[in-house]
Amino acid sequence: MKAYEIRASGIDALKLYDREIRKPAPGEVLVRVRASSINYRDYLNVLDPVGRGIAMPRTPNSDGAGEVVEVGSGVSRFTPGDRVMGTFFQCWIGGGISSDAMASALGGALDGVLAEYVVLNEHGLVAMPPHLTFQEASTLPCAALTAWHSLVEMGGLKPGQIVLLLGTGGVSIMALQFAVMSGARVIITSSSDEKLARAKAMGAWQTINYKTQPDWEKAVLDMTGGLGVDHVVEVGGAGTVERSVAAVRVGGTIAMIGVLTEGTLNATAVMRKSIRLQGIYVGSRSMFENMNKAIAAHEMRPVVDRIFPLEEARAAFHCMGEAGHFGKIVVTV
Amino acid sequence: MKAYEIRASGIDALKLYDREIRKPAPGEVLVRVRASSINYRDYLNVLDPVGRGIAMPRTPNSDGAGEVVEVGSGVSRFTPGDRVMGTFFQCWIGGGISSDAMASALGGALDGVLAEYVVLNEHGLVAMPPHLTFQEASTLPCAALTAWHSLVEMGGLKPGQIVLLLGTGGVSIMALQFAVMSGARVIITSSSDEKLARAKAMGAWQTINYKTQPDWEKAVLDMTGGLGVDHVVEVGGAGTVERSVAAVRVGGTIAMIGVLTEGTLNATAVMRKSIRLQGIYVGSRSMFENMNKAIAAHEMRPVVDRIFPLEEARAAFHCMGEAGHFGKIVVTV
Amino acid sequence: MKAYEIRASGIDALKLYDREIRKPAPGEVLVRVRASSINYRDYLNVLDPVGRGIAMPRTPNSDGAGEVVEVGSGVSRFTPGDRVMGTFFQCWIGGGISSDAMASALGGALDGVLAEYVVLNEHGLVAMPPHLTFQEASTLPCAALTAWHSLVEMGGLKPGQIVLLLGTGGVSIMALQFAVMSGARVIITSSSDEKLARAKAMGAWQTINYKTQPDWEKAVLDMTGGLGVDHVVEVGGAGTVERSVAAVRVGGTIAMIGVLTEGTLNATAVMRKSIRLQGIYVGSRSMFENMNKAIAAHEMRPVVDRIFPLEEARAAFHCMGEAGHFGKIVVTV
Amino acid sequence: MKAYEIRASGIDALKLYDREIRKPAPGEVLVRVRASSINYRDYLNVLDPVGRGIAMPRTPNSDGAGEVVEVGSGVSRFTPGDRVMGTFFQCWIGGGISSDAMASALGGALDGVLAEYVVLNEHGLVAMPPHLTFQEASTLPCAALTAWHSLVEMGGLKPGQIVLLLGTGGVSIMALQFAVMSGARVIITSSSDEKLARAKAMGAWQTINYKTQPDWEKAVLDMTGGLGVDHVVEVGGAGTVERSVAAVRVGGTIAMIGVLTEGTLNATAVMRKSIRLQGIYVGSRSMFENMNKAIAAHEMRPVVDRIFPLEEARAAFHCMGEAGHFGKIVVTV
Repeated sequence: MKAYEIRASGIDALKLYDREIRKPAPGEVLVRVRASSINYRDYLNVLDPVGRGIAMPRTPNSDGAGEVVEVGSGVSRFTPGDRVMGTFFQCWIGGGISSDAMASALGGALDGVLAEYVVLNEHGLVAMPPHLTFQEASTLPCAALTAWHSLVEMGGLKPGQIVLLLGTGGVSIMALQFAVMSGARVIITSSSDEKLARAKAMGAWQTINYKTQPDWEKAVLDMTGGLGVDHVVEVGGAGTVERSVAAVRVGGTIAMIGVLTEGTLNATAVMRKSIRLQGIYVGSRSMFENMNKAIAAHEMRPVVDRIFPLEEARAAFHCMGEAGHFGKIVVTV
Repeated sequence: MKAYEIRASGIDALKLYDREIRKPAPGEVLVRVRASSINYRDYLNVLDPVGRGIAMPRTPNSDGAGEVVEVGSGVSRFTPGDRVMGTFFQCWIGGGISSDAMASALGGALDGVLAEYVVLNEHGLVAMPPHLTFQEASTLPCAALTAWHSLVEMGGLKPGQIVLLLGTGGVSIMALQFAVMSGARVIITSSSDEKLARAKAMGAWQTINYKTQPDWEKAVLDMTGGLGVDHVVEVGGAGTVERSVAAVRVGGTIAMIGVLTEGTLNATAVMRKSIRLQGIYVGSRSMFENMNKAIAAHEMRPVVDRIFPLEEARAAFHCMGEAGHFGKIVVTV
Repeated sequence: MKAYEIRASGIDALKLYDREIRKPAPGEVLVRVRASSINYRDYLNVLDPVGRGIAMPRTPNSDGAGEVVEVGSGVSRFTPGDRVMGTFFQCWIGGGISSDAMASALGGALDGVLAEYVVLNEHGLVAMPPHLTFQEASTLPCAALTAWHSLVEMGGLKPGQIVLLLGTGGVSIMALQFAVMSGARVIITSSSDEKLARAKAMGAWQTINYKTQPDWEKAVLDMTGGLGVDHVVEVGGAGTVERSVAAVRVGGTIAMIGVLTEGTLNATAVMRKSIRLQGIYVGSRSMFENMNKAIAAHEMRPVVDRIFPLEEARAAFHCMGEAGHFGKIVVTV
Repeated sequence: MKAYEIRASGIDALKLYDREIRKPAPGEVLVRVRASSINYRDYLNVLDPVGRGIAMPRTPNSDGAGEVVEVGSGVSRFTPGDRVMGTFFQCWIGGGISSDAMASALGGALDGVLAEYVVLNEHGLVAMPPHLTFQEASTLPCAALTAWHSLVEMGGLKPGQIVLLLGTGGVSIMALQFAVMSGARVIITSSSDEKLARAKAMGAWQTINYKTQPDWEKAVLDMTGGLGVDHVVEVGGAGTVERSVAAVRVGGTIAMIGVLTEGTLNATAVMRKSIRLQGIYVGSRSMFENMNKAIAAHEMRPVVDRIFPLEEARAAFHCMGEAGHFGKIVVTV
């Protein structure tokens, strides 16, 4: 079978290799991968594996969906033919994150899913919502769960609350869908009026073009009667945290998920406004299962921006680097 | 001005009396009441004031909406012309309920709102969602807030979860609306197929006629793949708690709001299934304000079943006693 | 090696059998059991395995402590020589309880630890607090964790709060120790003045002899200025729930842990007082680890009432049935 | 009666003035102030009232304790002779902080308590724990409540957890006392070995002199086996937030209370370690009452470092500016 491996730095160094298909040991499941989506973190790992502490060779990508081919002895959760997704953290079932869990990330500490076959423990897999294609399902393990965890599990999102989303990348668009599904209102930013129009068509309440309105936190305050929003999903970028702190209401929450978030913190404002800044690192299997119930109940469809064949996975990573996408970038396997 | 007063037991003893309009003291607000809705608790207070510990004479009803006529000195939250609702507990602003708060219920410890005018502290009033009529707004302070508190504030309702509602009275229909708004699925029971059809039209996912299916908890388990529901709003009746315990999932919640709930408790099942039974007593002003944001954002309209003129308030109480309503019973003032 | 097995109903039917020592498979750990404590649930399982749905033959007891003898391949949490305890639920790592977890109880769905050797998955074991003996450690997996979960994890016990404990069995005495450690005040009941004196010596604030004061809920209200207690650990018995509901404050919590709790529920009081009745079913490994940190930091010593040698385990079960103990009953292996 | 007033910038501009004693209006209480403690925020307000938006003239200080002299009509919570403390926010009873509440701070938006008499609403007062002197009680409304809110109300402090405290100012020493009372372990930093010895005598588990060990976060990691602490009370200073982020465990909390906290935020670490940074702005009356129960139950005595007579209040502010204190600075009135 074929599998991509990071053996050196840079997208162009990423190559397909032939590997044996491993038999599933007791408790394990052999999965025929059908699609894998790319996250910014996967892109960074490919770009600079040494700086990011990635042992090589390493198969990239945390997010994949496929079909169960064979199960090891004692496996009770799945049978051949089941359509499944891997969990980002193979060992985070429920409760708070632990160091154990953190050492079990696919495409990081462990080999990822950009391969024709993977063998995973049955506890590191969840069933796909029935209405989804493999491409759609492959977008859920990291980006969707990060959005769900931020707003629903941590944020306790209520109908009528207002959510601020920064940009139209994978996490933001998932967050838009979950917020709308929860009866909340969404303010979303982008540098493209066309993307803002798409977000509006998906249910966004207000939109802000941050190119024409660089001090977008003021626009947010105007839209909310000066009170600010209930929740921000802070996907990061230079200097955004301070603006997010300004844009959130007294007692509001800011989910800190950005790999690249930088800049100073206005600690006095955090204190005075009783803000919660909460680091969010994907989520547990239990949260994933909660999310899947919601996706299934609403027959929600993740937004897949572009699809690349396995052989062109490098082009998919280049596409992520260009940051022009709306929703998710997927590789079919 | 005219005001109803409980001076003896029974609906037919309830009469209109003439009273002076009191000037608002500092911090107080004079409100011209326009509508008042009836809750089962108001009905019981009128029926048996002695047994329920009601000091007489006492103006009944917690729930009312009207217009601000005059404000006392120092009032900053309202001005004449504002459309407002009273809060059930005049002294429960936020946080957990306290004994102080419990001693401040309108139509119980304090005179209620079934009168042409009332004077309330400015902290015991909230603004009406702009799109509502007075009749609609008058249904919110007790029944709607009880439903909101049960599902959203206490239950932490998430999209994709399943809610079980018992019957089609005021609280249940409000709970149906809030659950749908939150992206949840609703199973609702009634003895009337016609009412079940109405509930379905409002977004219920599944319905159960408990006359033709008296062991409705089994139907609930069937509908949920044997797992049970996430939340029950237990409005009570003979023997319902044990069925609710059977119908809820492991780790689920049962909001105990029924004035008349009776029967034995299967404590072993509560323990084994890690169920939370949570007493819910209306809610705080802060929850009320959260709810109003949701109602306004969704332009939700409470279901008013029947409207009676002030002079026929006794007929409204009789109507409540017959328990044939779908949604709320309102008296216009 | 020797292991007890339930093959028929009744304590006297419980017998020792010879069994092979199984080699640990990948991920598994072979433990030489040194002590096992008895819980009321173990007693019921031995007494009436058929009524309790126990498959036979079945080795009883959830609670044990011992030494790691050998580890299977891939085991990273333990090495030979480590002193460990099994977790009650072998598959409840963290978060809320799931059906999966519920099907993994030692001495119930799975073989228990009343044996010279057991093989468990490495995720179903935790390290012993260093200062404890095996006998002491063997009391923690069920009784202590139930108490800890009730008061600290669920109850959110704060310094200065008041806890009501019913009787002086294993859970109650553990709860007394955790409550004192947390800076809370304890009211404890018993039918024996001598046991009450022992509880007082361990830090109880107030004691009630429920034989001389059968309406103990009134004494509790007197001791708390009429307000009631913050938390009750409801270990059960006939008619205790209604008294606990009367004894708890507005907004208080009642941890429902009693296997035998029976009786009617005053649902109106639950509603009016906004009480939380929360079923507690032991706890997760994550809670266990939190508890062990506290036990280690305080060098807390569980109270072992009586110790029986392995051959006399039947006497230990009879002792549990007599209900005269203060703290825990332990079998050394 | 005499009252200090801020009429210009700087400590030396702070002067005593004669004022009328105002009669309490309905709902109000006249209090003879006996002691007032100083917080860093009071110091800043005196130093730079213009920069801090203080309307002048303004009586400084949020924290005071005294005796009820007279009550207005309708007051039910207090009677003459009661020993009371004012609440920092006069309008924050319970629940989350609101904008209303924020506009009701004593010594900021409203006149403070550095005066012989004050008139406050009965809802803006709480009873003193009986065992305290007025000087001791005067230290509770701001510093103690900030510490309690951070660790107990927000942090959910459990026995066995580890708390990191920065310095030996008022909040840190209160936090030390509450942490010890809760069964937690404390690591505390100071530039003075003598102060560290005092902290150790009060129950601190470990101490770090940050002068001899400027990279104190490394010492914290060493003391905690590389895992980090559960909670940090971040009272601020240049560059401390980044060190606190390094010193806290995965999933830990950092209470952000520092008026002067500055510096950059390592957002990647916040995300990766799933840290909660929570702004804490004193606390509600409900939290204050919880805290008082704990203080009373433990007969805890706040640490008063120095006491100044009313006439020398300016010296007390200079003392605060020198930052050499251990515990609280108090002015007797």
